[in-house]
Order: sequence, then C-alpha cells, then structure tokens
Amino acid sequence: MTTDYRQMWTDLGLDLEAHDALLGVLGNAYKDTFVSQKNRPESMGYFDFVMSEVHGLRIKELQDARAEGRKVVGTFCVFVPDELILAADAVSVGLCAGAEFGFGEAEKLLPRNTCSLIKSFFGFKLSKVCPYIEASDMVVGETTCDGKKKAYETFKGIQPNLYVMEVPQMKKPADRALLKSEYVNFTSALEKLTGVKIDAERLKKGITIVNNRRKALHRLAALRAADPEPISGLDALLINQVAFYDNPLRFTESVNKVCDEIEARVKQGKGVFPKGTPRVLMAGCPMAVPNWKLPAIVETSGAVLVGEESCVGERGTRNLVDGSGGTVEALMDAIVDRYFQIDCAIFTPNDDRLNHIITMARDYKADGVILYSLQFCSPYTIESFSVEKNLADKGIRSLRIDTDYSQEDVGQLKTRVEAFLEVIKK
Amino acid sequence: MTTDYRQMWTDLGLDLEAHDALLGVLGNAYKDTFVSQKNRPESMGYFDFVMSEVHGLRIKELQDARAEGRKVVGTFCVFVPDELILAADAVSVGLCAGAEFGFGEAEKLLPRNTCSLIKSFFGFKLSKVCPYIEASDMVVGETTCDGKKKAYETFKGIQPNLYVMEVPQMKKPADRALLKSEYVNFTSALEKLTGVKIDAERLKKGITIVNNRRKALHRLAALRAADPEPISGLDALLINQVAFYDNPLRFTESVNKVCDEIEARVKQGKGVFPKGTPRVLMAGCPMAVPNWKLPAIVETSGAVLVGEESCVGERGTRNLVDGSGGTVEALMDAIVDRYFQIDCAIFTPNDDRLNHIITMARDYKADGVILYSLQFCSPYTIESFSVEKNLADKGIRSLRIDTDYSQEDVGQLKTRVEAFLEVIKK
Repeated sequence: MTTDYRQMWTDLGLDLEAHDALLGVLGNAYKDTFVSQKNRPESMGYFDFVMSEVHGLRIKELQDARAEGRKVVGTFCVFVPDELILAADAVSVGLCAGAEFGFGEAEKLLPRNTCSLIKSFFGFKLSKVCPYIEASDMVVGETTCDGKKKAYETFKGIQPNLYVMEVPQMKKPADRALLKSEYVNFTSALEKLTGVKIDAERLKKGITIVNNRRKALHRLAALRAADPEPISGLDALLINQVAFYDNPLRFTESVNKVCDEIEARVKQGKGVFPKGTPRVLMAGCPMAVPNWKLPAIVETSGAVLVGEESCVGERGTRNLVDGSGGTVEALMDAIVDRYFQIDCAIFTPNDDRLNHIITMARDYKADGVILYSLQFCSPYTIESFSVEKNLADKGIRSLRIDTDYSQEDVGQLKTRVEAFLEVIKK
Repeated sequence: MTTDYRQMWTDLGLDLEAHDALLGVLGNAYKDTFVSQKNRPESMGYFDFVMSEVHGLRIKELQDARAEGRKVVGTFCVFVPDELILAADAVSVGLCAGAEFGFGEAEKLLPRNTCSLIKSFFGFKLSKVCPYIEASDMVVGETTCDGKKKAYETFKGIQPNLYVMEVPQMKKPADRALLKSEYVNFTSALEKLTGVKIDAERLKKGITIVNNRRKALHRLAALRAADPEPISGLDALLINQVAFYDNPLRFTESVNKVCDEIEARVKQGKGVFPKGTPRVLMAGCPMAVPNWKLPAIVETSGAVLVGEESCVGERGTRNLVDGSGGTVEALMDAIVDRYFQIDCAIFTPNDDRLNHIITMARDYKADGVILYSLQFCSPYTIESFSVEKNLADKGIRSLRIDTDYSQEDVGQLKTRVEAFLEVIKK
C-alpha cells in the first residue's frame, strides 16, 4: 500500500496485529495466484491496484464519504438491491468473507458444522480485521439459508446495526408480495438511516449505475466464449469479486477497458491459454475474496474456467432492472421483478437454475462443469445432485466437489480435478 | 400382531423381508425401552397395543377408509393443519421417520451430512418399509428447513403425489399473508383430492376434533408438574408420538384415561420414580418413533423427563384454534392465527421459543434442560447456543447434545448425561 493507513484502522477499532497477519496472507495468496499468471491483460493492472489497496484506499474512500455525511451499507447477499442503497445516496459494500480466519472464536458462537462463509464473517468480526464491516453504518443480513438466518441472531449481539431482510422460498404471487414488502421496508430503513427521501429520479439514477455495471460484466462474460480464452477464469472471477467492493462508476469503466483489450485479443485469436485448452464452467456457491482455491487448482491443472454460475458471477449479475418507469411504485416493481428472478438454490422448485447451467455450458462452450459446494451449505449441496443428473441427461460431464476454506484438501482436490480433466479431454 | 397382514403389505408394495427386519428391530426396541419400565400406568396398555399394531391394524383402518372412498394424507410437519385434512373428510397421518434404515440408499440421493430425519424418510421410502407413505393418497412436504425444502425436490421423483407447502421465516404481516395463501391453496388441493367442499360446518368439526386432542395432551403435560412424576417421560413422549398416527377421537379418549389414572396418582402422591428424582426438560428437534435413544438414556440414568419442548410435544400442541367463527373465512383466519404462533426454530427472530422454554422449565419444575439437536439440523443447532445463553441468564442449567439416529454414541451420551445430572442434583 502506498500510504500508512494504521491510524485509520485504529480509529475503526481493528486489531492491528491480527490485521497485519491477514494482509500478509492475503498479499502472498494474491501474488501466488494472480500475479504469477501468464499473458494477463494489461488492463488487469487496475484490479491489481484495487486489491493492493483493498483495506487501504477503498476504506479511506468510505471514511471520506462518511465524513461528508454519506452512509455506508454493508451487505452479504445479491438479494439486497444496490439500486436502493445508491438511491439513498449511500455507499454499498459487500461483506462476505472468504478466508479461514478467527474460526476458533467463531466456533464458540456457532456449531462447528457451519459453512466456512458464515464462520468467516464471524471470525473476521470477532478478530477485528474487517475494515468494511467496521466502516458500515448499517449491515444487511437476509434469510436466504438456515445457516445465515439463524447465525444473524447471534451476530446481532456483536453487530448491533444489523438489519435482517426476509427472502421468500418459492416463486408464487404471495412470495413476490413478500419480497416487495421487504424491499419497501428496506427503503424506509435506508431513508431513516440517510435522511434522503428516495424519489423516482434517485431510483432511476441507482438503476442506471447498477445496470451499467451489470452490462460491463455481461460483456466480459460473453467474450469468454472465445477459444482461445482471452482472459483467465481467475481474473474474471477477481473482477466479479471486486464488483462488490469498488466504486461502481470507476469499476464499470475499468471492466469495459478490460473488455476493449480482450475484444482485440479475440479478433487477433490470442488468448491466455492455447486454443483447445479444456474448458470448465464452475457452478455453485459464491466465492468471496480470497477464496480462490478451486479456480486456482483448475487453471494450474491444464484447464481454463469459462464462466461462474455463482452469486459472485452470472447468477448475481444476470438480468437488468427495467428503468423506464416514471414513478417510485413502477420502479420498485421493476426492481422486485428483476431480483425475484434470481435462481438461488434457496428456492424450490428451482428448475430455472438447472436450465441456466445448461445454457451457460453451451454458450461458453464448456467441456465439463464443476459443481462447487461449500461444505454444510445444504441448498447448493443438495441441489448439486439434481444439477448433476440434469447435466448427465444432456450429455454434459460434471464433477461434484464439496470443500471449505482450509488448504488441507488441496492435494486431494487437485487429483480429482486432474482426473476429471482427463475425462473431458477425450 | 394379532392378524396376518402380509397380503395387505404386499398390496401396498412393501418389501416384506426388509419390513420384517424393521418390525423386528422396532419390537425389540419397544420391549427394552417401554415394557421394561416400572410403575407404568395401566392405561398405557392401550398405547402398547397401538404400537404392537402400528403397521397392522392402523394400516388396515387406513385401507378400509380408502375402500370407503376416503383419502389418506401423509404429513411431515406440524405446520400442516390437521383441521383442514379432517374437514375434507380425509385421514391425516404423520410420516416422519425416526430410525436409521436404508441410509446407504438415501446417501446416493442426498449428501451424507444431511440430518437423520430426512435420510430416514428417504431410507424408509427407498427400502419400501413404510406402510403409511404407501397408503397415502397425498404426501405433504413443506419448506421449513433447507434440508427438507431441497430434499423434497428429489423426493418428488420417487413420491409423485408429493405436495409442497411454503412456510414463512419471519412473523411480519407479509408472512402471515403468505401462510394464509398457502393454507388456502392447500384447502383447494384437498378439495380436489377428496371431492369434498370444505364449508364452515366441516371446518368447525375438524377444529373441535384437533382442539380436543390438544386439550388432552395439555392435560397430560400439566399433570407432569407433580413430584413424584406420575408418568415417565418416555411414556409421555410415546403418547405424543402416537398422536400423529392414531384415530384422533379414540386417541383423545385414551389420553384422557391415562390422565384420569395419573391424576389419581398425583392425589395419592404416587409416581413412577421417587419424589425428588432430578427433573429434566428436553428442548429441541422432534423425536419420531422409534427415536427414543436420548430419553431412554436420561430415564435410565436416575432422572425423569418432565416435558418435551418439541414438535412431538408442547411446541406442536400448544395453543388452540378459535372455532367460534361462523364463516370459512373467519375459521381459516383462526387456523392461520394458531399455526402462525408456532415457535419453530425456522423463524427469525424466535424469542418466543426462548421464553417458552423458560416457562416450561418453571411450570414443570425442571432442574435442568437438555437441548437436543439432530446433527446437521442448522435451525435447532444454531438456536441452541441462544437458548443455552438465555437459560444461563435465568440461572437454569442446560446441556447441549447433538446426535443422530445411530447407536454408536450411546455410551458417550450416557456419560455426558450422568455428569449433567450430578451437576443439577446439587
């Protein structure tokens, strides 16, 4: 980092020693996983910079915004509409944590057989190493899975500004009504927090910003259909991860720059790996920074990742909000319509997701699909059996992998991935 | 069993050999756990008979009802209103399974780290040993926990007459609206199944029958406040378990006979265990037949169970439906009002349950509370941390136990229970 942020971190209540340890691990992991890659687009330099300043400059930006009277809203899930947060002139930041840190402390408050993602955000909070959550004026949880839903009850004891939003479990009219009611309630909570009255103009502005970010990510996704692949799956994942943290306007511009560069590569037939490299689609649980374990294994085993069917990926960015309405009511309905389409495994039935994985596999010309489940994540783990069967029915090979944030199973995973790649090469 | 039911079981499609094996295990477990108890009320003879005929006479009754044109509706959860099923002149039977049977087959369709209850109903179905599900014209699942919600998607492939009902996760107005909408949908489905039009008179009749069953169970529960205990916790649990299977009118009469007998015992100061025996409340996951492992350990370790805060117990039977309304609309609202109060751990926040456990501990004069969680049941396991803390704040001792349906941990559990009893005796 270019500047000394220690005073800022101290002011935020971080444990500097533990935080140094985390940054050390994160920096090394980033260097090993990303900087070591060959043929990276030059425009990825922006994301290298963002990552080098992830707890520095970006946090300073948040603190500067707060000093100007704006509020920071931290979220854990793609069901929380950024459009509403932006319409309230607040800053939205993603809080999901992807590292095994503070699990010992977390397991005093949670069952050991809780998924790593939940243990991680507890661990980060209890260890005082997450400047994002400490800089948040409101933290938004949601009732997606049993684990998060119940863990937030305990989390509220250590994060009093936690707001919990309900998400329905089916896609009937009463469910849409419930989601809309929750978005209306959330709008009121944001207005109360910020003192900003959310009107149609503000909503339209929020919708445009978030749609543009999605369009840039859609553009990136579409370019990955090329063979040779113009960008590694790791870099594409990183961009999708940074989407949750970064200033959305600057982020969108930076993604479009990457797209300009790789579009030129596609025209020239250039890529990061040789033409004909086995192509793998990843489908399943979200991967938050720095959860790069499985993608790194795949891309150092002779394959390339061509898409992420994930909240940190296409499940999270799919579909735009129709911003053509002229009233708050019409725009809220458009927001509800867009989010109600998300095919998260918390819904039942969830055939949309099964079909979408097939579409992605075909669009991105995948030779096989890796079904990634975070251990103890019931919705995705159970659904992976249906996904596997559906893929097999369509003649698409898949590999189910359950793992967590530890590094203990890296060798075993590499063996399984390599065996899978041997199969899909044929 | 008094009669040869083999032809009936064959007609239902059971695997006779596997079914014989199951009945053998069940019969021995019942003998060892229940018949061996001392000072049992004589009126428990009815329940011994019911259990001896659980796959015989009761199934014949169901088949006779079907031959007369009535329908059988199998359910997995106390959120499915028996009132509606009875109002449609159908027979309601509980389907939750409490034994480790067919898990090998179940684990081909489900992750290994799925709770035993879910694996059990898959195992029973796949092994063709459950006459209740085979005699059901409609099977009703529900979206309570992630495990069941997602497992039903797979279960539908082997149980095509499965109907899945949504249950909300919070207790706001939109949630009540969702639950009502689901009960209205379910009423339509029942009318379609049975050809019966559910009117106010039929609803009132259903409400009266189910309320009377609840009142008998409330009476039983209240009598257990006495010291010495007039009935063992095992026998009281058995009665609560049989409530899900038996003819409700005959069941209610039989429970009231037990109450008459133990009421006399209370007046005489007689009991099943000596006065002053340590008193334990059990709180947590439901225990379906023949899941008697933990209660048997407690009651053979020198303590008595004085209540079950469970779906198979007071959580399931608490609160009556107000049957005074004169219209279908008013009665449906009364049904929704009653069921919406259930303090299942799927709800967030769920302070009602924390408070109710305190109330039960005090009402039944418990010396300590055992918090029972089925392994991999996230809602109850995570909530047990809050329950434990709340009990500690009120000066009530508790012991958290996670277990499954296997017998492998019996020794270890007995050691932990005995140590806990030593502590609460002081």
